[in-house]
Amino acid sequence: MDHKIEIRQYIADHQERYLEDLKDWLRIPSVSALPEHRDDMYRAADYAAKLLQRIGLEQVEVIPTPGHPLVYAEWLKAPGKPTVLFYGHYDVQPADPIELWKTPPFEPTIQNNNLYCRGVSDDKGQTMLVIKALETLLQVDGKLPVNVKVLIEGEEEIGSPSIGAYVKEHAERLACDTVFVCDSPMERADTPTIITGLRGMAYTEIEVRGAQRDLHSGLFGGVAPNPLHAIALIIAKLKDENDHIHIPGLYDKLQAPSDFDREFWDQDPLNLAEGFKQEMGLNALSGEPEYPPLERIGGRPSFDVHGIVGGFVDPGAKTVIPGVVTAKISMRLPPALNSKEVFALLEKAVKSYAPPNVEVTVRYLAGAEGMSVAQNSSSMTAAVIALKETFGNDPIFVRSGGTLPVAVIFQEVLNAPVVLTGFALPDDNLHAPNEKYSLDNFFKGIYTIARFLEERAIIAD
Amino acid sequence: MDHKIEIRQYIADHQERYLEDLKDWLRIPSVSALPEHRDDMYRAADYAAKLLQRIGLEQVEVIPTPGHPLVYAEWLKAPGKPTVLFYGHYDVQPADPIELWKTPPFEPTIQNNNLYCRGVSDDKGQTMLVIKALETLLQVDGKLPVNVKVLIEGEEEIGSPSIGAYVKEHAERLACDTVFVCDSPMERADTPTIITGLRGMAYTEIEVRGAQRDLHSGLFGGVAPNPLHAIALIIAKLKDENDHIHIPGLYDKLQAPSDFDREFWDQDPLNLAEGFKQEMGLNALSGEPEYPPLERIGGRPSFDVHGIVGGFVDPGAKTVIPGVVTAKISMRLPPALNSKEVFALLEKAVKSYAPPNVEVTVRYLAGAEGMSVAQNSSSMTAAVIALKETFGNDPIFVRSGGTLPVAVIFQEVLNAPVVLTGFALPDDNLHAPNEKYSLDNFFKGIYTIARFLEERAIIAD
Repeated sequence: MDHKIEIRQYIADHQERYLEDLKDWLRIPSVSALPEHRDDMYRAADYAAKLLQRIGLEQVEVIPTPGHPLVYAEWLKAPGKPTVLFYGHYDVQPADPIELWKTPPFEPTIQNNNLYCRGVSDDKGQTMLVIKALETLLQVDGKLPVNVKVLIEGEEEIGSPSIGAYVKEHAERLACDTVFVCDSPMERADTPTIITGLRGMAYTEIEVRGAQRDLHSGLFGGVAPNPLHAIALIIAKLKDENDHIHIPGLYDKLQAPSDFDREFWDQDPLNLAEGFKQEMGLNALSGEPEYPPLERIGGRPSFDVHGIVGGFVDPGAKTVIPGVVTAKISMRLPPALNSKEVFALLEKAVKSYAPPNVEVTVRYLAGAEGMSVAQNSSSMTAAVIALKETFGNDPIFVRSGGTLPVAVIFQEVLNAPVVLTGFALPDDNLHAPNEKYSLDNFFKGIYTIARFLEERAIIAD
Repeated sequence: MDHKIEIRQYIADHQERYLEDLKDWLRIPSVSALPEHRDDMYRAADYAAKLLQRIGLEQVEVIPTPGHPLVYAEWLKAPGKPTVLFYGHYDVQPADPIELWKTPPFEPTIQNNNLYCRGVSDDKGQTMLVIKALETLLQVDGKLPVNVKVLIEGEEEIGSPSIGAYVKEHAERLACDTVFVCDSPMERADTPTIITGLRGMAYTEIEVRGAQRDLHSGLFGGVAPNPLHAIALIIAKLKDENDHIHIPGLYDKLQAPSDFDREFWDQDPLNLAEGFKQEMGLNALSGEPEYPPLERIGGRPSFDVHGIVGGFVDPGAKTVIPGVVTAKISMRLPPALNSKEVFALLEKAVKSYAPPNVEVTVRYLAGAEGMSVAQNSSSMTAAVIALKETFGNDPIFVRSGGTLPVAVIFQEVLNAPVVLTGFALPDDNLHAPNEKYSLDNFFKGIYTIARFLEERAIIAD
């Protein structure tokens, strides 16, 4: 039997069990952000470790960290062949707001050939399909075509605070020729997508302090500084109506885009901008009018307010002038912009924009750098072949607007090219209620990863 | 024995019991804003009713309303004498934030000759001293020098939604020559204060809607409208750095102040502006620089943001772009500005300021009109005499920046002059943790009210 057909057949014959293994993992509510799920984090890590052991990987280990544990496994019995390090994460976003879920968030439910569950698409489903690809090859061939290492973390949704130190301390153990990260969506259901760039991020809190205590707006309204008004003035100065950011120095370090990116952004051949509108339920996109929509996401810094803490936010009317408020603000940064440098510029701008009679403090809460990925590595070539074979269409190369701190760490510390791809779909409700994953794509993903490994084995570096 | 001394002596002899009656009332957590305290509202109303009955008032009634009940009582055995209607309220603000209280919020505690408890100064202490003044006169003289009606409500802290309808329907029962409202602070501990004006208020919510759901700032940051940014732009346009309000038409209807107010505001003879700074812990006051501080409070409209609802407000970093946010905003309005008219102007301005690609809705949540009080009524004269006798200094007449919807209702429906005064102090922490009331002022207040009634009986209308 043709080997490709054999692989397809094996996957087809074991669909039910493969799905059950995923469902059991999904039932563990491994929400990294919530302390009450600490035990679930260990359960989810153990589950992955046992599965990796069972399919035949070696040196399987649940590795404690200051936060949630890592899972490591390897199969290094292909001497002379390249080594691929797979990365995934078993932690998931909180299920809030739970009332908007149509099915229980931690009970996997199949509807219309989609599997609904928190974490199914981000990233347990996409991690499980890698494990199942390895299982398939080991079952069909008794071996893998290349050497494989697997590293699964439990803190991706909280900014990956622990994995960096581990990667740096164990660079030798993790040494590889390629890092493969299966944690991203396809831009369209018929078009596989490879990410060629990520934005970095600076997440900050701007605290504005007025009077030493909350005040009654009747007795003090007219002479009291209002920190909520002050934060509005500051935010309005930082980003104007046309979404231009007014942080002196910010745009100076931006680099001109490559011809490839320029053309893709200008032409938007898949009409992705239309998809964004539909997803948002809007007739028009926002953002800097003189840049094409894809460039606004892939090539320009963004500035978003996420929440304003302070004052009275319950139903009804209370006339308090709060003494102190905090705005949560993040900026996404193209690779040329360093998060700490941008923070320093932001802090300076905020202080210069603050109205008189309030005290302003700017805090750096979290940050990560952006990155660019070369499109011409052997691993990229193998990925393109495998993706095209599965989906019938060439993959597109896009710069994502998102941030993946661990990808930057891999690229820098392991000095290996990173392949960023995945089989989630734009409407999979990542980080939102009713997260889902296409069952078709789950099984297509297994096949793609198996084929990627085979192609990677035969392409010269 | 001199009659004044007799009154003083009676109060002095019964201090302990008078205080115990207040403490028992304070222990009932009659928080009108919180549904879980509904039973407490009835307990607090019953308590007042029983006390009024016990001291000898008649027709005592706990009157149900669509919200919390009213308490009514009367003593009408002074034919040919004027009738004074006393108003107070038994409901209190929520105790939040409880962790900032140094003593339990609903356990009255005496420290340094102050009584600490939620509601002690606003307004149970100030209502109780009226009851105790009536009790004192009835005990000492066996009668009151004028006819008296008492109306106590349980919804003052939530905007007095029910009392208006009752007053209108029972205008005959409540008919009187004077309304006396004991619910305000003295500007300084040595200076009794009579309020000659109140600001009205328009309390609104501005809702800004962007995308149909919350979005991930990595994937959409750059093309998604951010309602928190939009609300900041709108707020910044509505009030500028110099605290000028940009609502076309707003300032047009303001009236020139009287010479009396002009002089008081310009001269600030008690240096109240300094006290505001100290209370706020600030070196400077905010507000329109070209108007004196007292005018900013007493004669100018204010614009304050109280809270912004939506997005992520928990500790940590979450990169959500909320689909919808709401800003709670109120304006305090000098008597010449009608709350509904100002709301219409505000709504128009907000819509014209809204950036493209968001939908804006402005809601009128609550409102009340301002009022001016004549300084030359017989009741005012009686109040001045009584206050000066107690405190040694002439009372000052000030326009308050606050709002008291019920005072406007009394003035309009009952067509009777309203005396607004009280014995709270500027540092009594109204609406804040560690609310207190001076025990000296509690007993001075009892004496003052008793003397006011005697003076009112002998001054011709």
